[in-house]
Amino acid sequence: MLAAGVRAVGAPPIPLARTWSARYDGRAGPLIDLTQAVPGYPPHDDLLARLAQAAGSREAAAYGPIEGDTALRERLAADLAARYGADFAAEDVAITAGCNLAFVMAATTIAGSGAAVMLPSPWYFNHHMALTMLGIGTVALPCRAEDGFVPDPETAARLLTPATRAIVLVTPNNPTGAIYPPATIAAFAELCRAKGLWLVLDETYRDFLPGDAPPHAVFADPSWRDFAVHLYSFSKAYCVPGHRVGAMAAGPGFRAEAAKVLDTMQICPTRTPQIALAWAIDALRGWREANRALMARRADAFRAAVTPLQDWKLDALGAYFAYLRLPESAPDADAAAEHLAASCGLATLPGPFFGPGQTRHLRLAFANVDEAAIAAVPDRLRAF
Amino acid sequence: MLAAGVRAVGAPPIPLARTWSARYDGRAGPLIDLTQAVPGYPPHDDLLARLAQAAGSREAAAYGPIEGDTALRERLAADLAARYGADFAAEDVAITAGCNLAFVMAATTIAGSGAAVMLPSPWYFNHHMALTMLGIGTVALPCRAEDGFVPDPETAARLLTPATRAIVLVTPNNPTGAIYPPATIAAFAELCRAKGLWLVLDETYRDFLPGDAPPHAVFADPSWRDFAVHLYSFSKAYCVPGHRVGAMAAGPGFRAEAAKVLDTMQICPTRTPQIALAWAIDALRGWREANRALMARRADAFRAAVTPLQDWKLDALGAYFAYLRLPESAPDADAAAEHLAASCGLATLPGPFFGPGQTRHLRLAFANVDEAAIAAVPDRLRAF
Repeated sequence: MLAAGVRAVGAPPIPLARTWSARYDGRAGPLIDLTQAVPGYPPHDDLLARLAQAAGSREAAAYGPIEGDTALRERLAADLAARYGADFAAEDVAITAGCNLAFVMAATTIAGSGAAVMLPSPWYFNHHMALTMLGIGTVALPCRAEDGFVPDPETAARLLTPATRAIVLVTPNNPTGAIYPPATIAAFAELCRAKGLWLVLDETYRDFLPGDAPPHAVFADPSWRDFAVHLYSFSKAYCVPGHRVGAMAAGPGFRAEAAKVLDTMQICPTRTPQIALAWAIDALRGWREANRALMARRADAFRAAVTPLQDWKLDALGAYFAYLRLPESAPDADAAAEHLAASCGLATLPGPFFGPGQTRHLRLAFANVDEAAIAAVPDRLRAF
Repeated sequence: MLAAGVRAVGAPPIPLARTWSARYDGRAGPLIDLTQAVPGYPPHDDLLARLAQAAGSREAAAYGPIEGDTALRERLAADLAARYGADFAAEDVAITAGCNLAFVMAATTIAGSGAAVMLPSPWYFNHHMALTMLGIGTVALPCRAEDGFVPDPETAARLLTPATRAIVLVTPNNPTGAIYPPATIAAFAELCRAKGLWLVLDETYRDFLPGDAPPHAVFADPSWRDFAVHLYSFSKAYCVPGHRVGAMAAGPGFRAEAAKVLDTMQICPTRTPQIALAWAIDALRGWREANRALMARRADAFRAAVTPLQDWKLDALGAYFAYLRLPESAPDADAAAEHLAASCGLATLPGPFFGPGQTRHLRLAFANVDEAAIAAVPDRLRAF
């Protein structure tokens, strides 16, 4: 008999979705794969060269510090300071073996079995899977299409339970793409501070936000270190998901406890990409800016392509994802996603992967493909 | 307030031990660091070249399969088959982001909060830390110096509790170095099968076992897939701890549940070292054999150096580690290890890092250093 918390979790969603597209026979043209969030362009050649150089070194083969290499922590802290208009020092930052593990380690640090964490729903499925297998309850905070899937702090306050230890916000959101307004994030910060909860801000997609204004003002007040934890991924902005590097920013009290978890779960993050990324943060700023503009054009192209469709409704869009409402006449999302992938050559993820009550939506990771493929999406949807 | 399970765990041990040796002023010669288990020689140049080649590729930057790259799974399965004289297929094996994470993922798959796992004591500290922070109880199985720190299956049977879900054996052992006899491992396998428990065999140091006989016969009976989980690390044999690659071998029932945990915690193991190690398993067999012989010579040299000491007693030794009993007149192990590091230039880890009742022992990772350094150890101990 294996652990009940693991048995309660469904099979990994993306491989399941891949079985649907594997049945597609090409009748409508090449498969358009909008399932997993993967950058639709390769890493910069100079980054590949730096990765090769690092991997060939004896240094990269040796253990590094538990919380990551100092050089990368320093460069990321400076990058955060510039992006958020706030003070960040190297010691505020820990590097992690991916952002999924960063979430698992943060959740382990915050909550034990029997405690609970609030997730706006729909949620990122690996967050819910992690909490469930760790024995941590999920308090769902339903988001509404009419609010653009932005969660409401007042509703959150009403739904908090005595067991709730943290609220997790993913912005820009996965799966909906919703970009949470700074005022909303501030209200959640105030709620967490007032109630003694941790605010976990997963900003994996922050490099693709439009504009240069800080995404929110939480870090402008140094007391964020008492109640907030920021999570980040290098996978998307640098196109290196296979190198598995994420990060966590938190205050000294949190990090002292989290260091035990990092030591136990990762020992140290992989060295090779840390060495290369410490160089890339500054050196590839212009390249990342160009990709941000490219992503914005893809978002515009996706909106322009899908909006004219009569029956489909674009309920949210941003950064990497669009959250599309099915026509009234369509079957539920699971069957719709399977049919779209297997028969129409458009691979998406169905809403139920992302939590309860999502039976009428699909997530489309439009960032994966170029504008020509985006332009072909309406025909695939019409063929449905 | 952070999670009780994490607060109950002590600070990461190795950085603490490093603060002691940082105070050493060199009076007795260069520091001899026998704390962390790190190979005392560099990776093979051809492996570094392969790592560089892989890291420079677009393939390594992309997500891979949750359970690891097929090529590495196939090569590791063949290596296991040869080493254990048993059938292993690629699908028996999953690649993990290090062996520490493999243990965390196996423990999560097996046991939830409120369940318990039996660990022979002294234990590998990260195992106990992992269980504690996951809310899983530890049932200590005390090992005795007079038994060479080999755990006794009959004692284990008596100490099992209704909450116990698994027994973990680390062989060759960390911290003692004890190599468990095949008959002992067989008796534990029989106990686990009879009681419906999982047998977790952490064989991180198996590449340094003397002789070519299979380390045990558990895998010779195909029914091992119903009750056993094997853990492995590439860090030691290939000198690549900074690349964080381990592995798990288990049957289909276990792996179906574990896949959810792997998806949530690692998404995929880092690609670069997987690509290079798939080549290295066969190509570097001779080099690994030479290093095994080198390690055996270091073990012999360590035994020869320490045995003549009147007051110190070598209670166990094998593969990477020696477990040394302090002189009667010495203070307890924590104070002794601090003094040895800070004043005598010999950095070791004190027994209490490895569990209760270990106040008279030190762990010395002799594999870290060459025979000249090993020859200098007795003088450092005598100066104590």
